[in-house]
Amino acid sequence: MDIPNIDDIKAAHKRIKPFIHKTPVLTSTAINEMFHCRLYFKCENFQKVGAFKYRGATNAVQSLSKDEAQRGVATHSSGNHAQALALAAKVREIKATVVMPENAPQVKKDAVASYGADIIFCKPTLEAREGTLNQFVTQSSASIIHPYDNFNVIAGQGTAALEFLQELNNNLDYIICPVGGGGLLSGTAICTKAISSRTQVIAAEPHGANDAYRSFTMGKLMPSINPHTIADGLLTSLSERTFSIIKSNVDSIITVQDHSAIQAMKLIWERMKIIIEASSAFPLGILIENHNLFRNKNIGIILSGGNIDLNHIPWIKQ
Amino acid sequence: MDIPNIDDIKAAHKRIKPFIHKTPVLTSTAINEMFHCRLYFKCENFQKVGAFKYRGATNAVQSLSKDEAQRGVATHSSGNHAQALALAAKVREIKATVVMPENAPQVKKDAVASYGADIIFCKPTLEAREGTLNQFVTQSSASIIHPYDNFNVIAGQGTAALEFLQELNNNLDYIICPVGGGGLLSGTAICTKAISSRTQVIAAEPHGANDAYRSFTMGKLMPSINPHTIADGLLTSLSERTFSIIKSNVDSIITVQDHSAIQAMKLIWERMKIIIEASSAFPLGILIENHNLFRNKNIGIILSGGNIDLNHIPWIKQ
Repeated sequence: MDIPNIDDIKAAHKRIKPFIHKTPVLTSTAINEMFHCRLYFKCENFQKVGAFKYRGATNAVQSLSKDEAQRGVATHSSGNHAQALALAAKVREIKATVVMPENAPQVKKDAVASYGADIIFCKPTLEAREGTLNQFVTQSSASIIHPYDNFNVIAGQGTAALEFLQELNNNLDYIICPVGGGGLLSGTAICTKAISSRTQVIAAEPHGANDAYRSFTMGKLMPSINPHTIADGLLTSLSERTFSIIKSNVDSIITVQDHSAIQAMKLIWERMKIIIEASSAFPLGILIENHNLFRNKNIGIILSGGNIDLNHIPWIKQ
Repeated sequence: MDIPNIDDIKAAHKRIKPFIHKTPVLTSTAINEMFHCRLYFKCENFQKVGAFKYRGATNAVQSLSKDEAQRGVATHSSGNHAQALALAAKVREIKATVVMPENAPQVKKDAVASYGADIIFCKPTLEAREGTLNQFVTQSSASIIHPYDNFNVIAGQGTAALEFLQELNNNLDYIICPVGGGGLLSGTAICTKAISSRTQVIAAEPHGANDAYRSFTMGKLMPSINPHTIADGLLTSLSERTFSIIKSNVDSIITVQDHSAIQAMKLIWERMKIIIEASSAFPLGILIENHNLFRNKNIGIILSGGNIDLNHIPWIKQ
């Protein structure tokens, strides 16, 4: 089981730098005053395709040999990773194929198609998705790029923390990011522990999809059975690889209720005038639920993405 | 009738620089491709209090003599200018009094109060507002800071264009901003014509509140009678002062339907992941209604503000 180290993350950063946005770090006086601490927000909602996923996908695609690249890439996903892989492949001028459940929202089908990827539709079950993907890959010899259980993807996701810590001269007491499958958290934790050992790494997880929290506290992988949360990006469970990284590099996993995350999301929209998706709001949700835990501290939060259906805002009843 | 010139705008910039945000200029590849031109967005939605109004209010407050400052400032407004004046006064540690109609939304009352201003409520008519303000000022000798019909306010608003043109080395074919009372447009036009005479100044005005368009084309001041538009910041009419500046410095005023502005607003939220208020969307609304007018041009748009009630999104039916 290959696990990237800090040199792999630095190499990934060098590799993907020409293709990604160096996203800004924003602050808000109003939010700092509200929580009595200094918060720094790394804005991956401004990343290409609107999410950090473009870092990992680009690193994976740019790491392929010429031979591999010619055979194309494939994944099954209906979220940000699918769009990220589609654009990363387009940039390298290779073929991307995305297996999607036939009932995926039209807006997601359109987004993936707009980046020029081929879409194969399947029944909306994990078995159908994996079966369809494996069948396609057997025929085409395309490389499967898993959304998080992948060495190069994890190394790529770690570059957000690398830029973040460099910009703040490692001056962070905590770095907080959301956890779903654990790709972003794994990259963030490896990077942070290597270059700023005094910075604690905390993960924010939805209360209704808390497999990482349970696995972390029980010491063994315990995937979610019927997870439910407003954050569709955080429904996935850890893999053996991401769990093993998280076990040895993360300081704490804290669960957050959806309603606190929605409150955090609205607060960031309102005060910072930026759009973040629900998944991105769970780290600030921790501060809403735990008022005094971070008093007077320097806290870095990775805002993972900004892709949301603007016709359905979580706090507006329709 | 005092009218500021470019030196007044430069002096204003020097005066307010320690107090304001130098707001970023953002771009969007997706929106550029959509309109076949290069668009640059000056993000005053990231300005303090969430709007360009803080520039003018700060310049007015910081320009007061010590004696004047001690007697405080006052205005009647329920919009961004009220919040801007309240914060500008708080920063100089002087008193601000805002006359507001008693039926103003609670969120606006709270915002003004949160910056420490005194509020005097009155009946919701222009007569009551002006009467109440004049009565207060007679008693207190406070200085009235009008939201746009004021030399220092206009000079302050012009500093957004100053930063914008400097950052882009004057490399703009057009600069477009919304017009309500004309403070932002006046400052923008004076500044642009002085430092980049080849740049055309265009104003975007709601079709249902088109007093500037009618005044501009008829050559005489024609205030709105019953204006209606989704952009509450653009309901006001020009004053003699702003009209006289606009007449001699603006190249064109183009009206935009509300539904095009709403489309532009959603596009900016979706693609740029930033929150802008309806008033800010009218400039891009021009491009939505006039596809080919700006092909291959460099266009600067001032996004005037980001204060919106997030419980009421214009494209969501409740």
